[in-house]
Amino acid sequence: MTTASTPPAGVPALPANAKAIGEILGEMAFDAKGLIAAIAQQAGSNEVLMLAWMNREAVETTLRSGYAHYYSRSRQKLWKKGESSGQLQKLIDFRLDCDGDAVLMLVEQTGVACHTGRHNCFFRAPRALGALTEIAKVEVDPSKLYGE
Amino acid sequence: MTTASTPPAGVPALPANAKAIGEILGEMAFDAKGLIAAIAQQAGSNEVLMLAWMNREAVETTLRSGYAHYYSRSRQKLWKKGESSGQLQKLIDFRLDCDGDAVLMLVEQTGVACHTGRHNCFFRAPRALGALTEIAKVEVDPSKLYGE
Repeated sequence: MTTASTPPAGVPALPANAKAIGEILGEMAFDAKGLIAAIAQQAGSNEVLMLAWMNREAVETTLRSGYAHYYSRSRQKLWKKGESSGQLQKLIDFRLDCDGDAVLMLVEQTGVACHTGRHNCFFRAPRALGALTEIAKVEVDPSKLYGE
Repeated sequence: MTTASTPPAGVPALPANAKAIGEILGEMAFDAKGLIAAIAQQAGSNEVLMLAWMNREAVETTLRSGYAHYYSRSRQKLWKKGESSGQLQKLIDFRLDCDGDAVLMLVEQTGVACHTGRHNCFFRAPRALGALTEIAKVEVDPSKLYGE
């Protein structure tokens, strides 16, 4: 069985021209708010780093720049991942699911992905007594990522 | 660096009692429709299999039964993954992200995850000429999964 979760050898450069990006956008099912769920996965290890949201502008900017951009629902604006923290995500591959309503981005993560300083955002899991337990350590002090 | 994407050795059984499940639900940020995005990831290989949605009932039933359940937005009801196809997802770990609005489930997938017969749902990616290209083969004839 071949899994598609690692980038195949010799993947060509991602398309950066308007026509190609338009075709990809045409296959994407954005929700009523114009958003689509996007998973960022570390290329190579396949670690799931985070889940965030993209709008059309975020998809276009990601494909054109080669760096992951999202739509911040709290700030209601385009958000370049790592803009303030330096924790950029270089885009390796951009995949769409069967019904076009979810994106999987393979990325090379600079530093940590989580704003708490952990390598990925999924660090809480039920353990021993049933309570959610932190299962990953803080690797970078968040104040170092975002300033005091 | 320790990644949290593989289940740590000796993970205790998932909590199945109402109190523990209630505590976990209390940490989850469901959206206005009562839903939360859930990623299913193959334990071991870390392949991202699919993204679907859960409501409170789906979370409870998943944790209690040990098999992934989702909420089908098209059919508007609880959906046990593999109910009709036999392609069950045995739950290995259940993780919540930093702000509680996304779930990562590590599962053991029986057969293929995608209703198209591919191992995972993320089989479309921009290639050579910019058009979305299928990057994974059909492994199981969908008519064999769901009947004629």
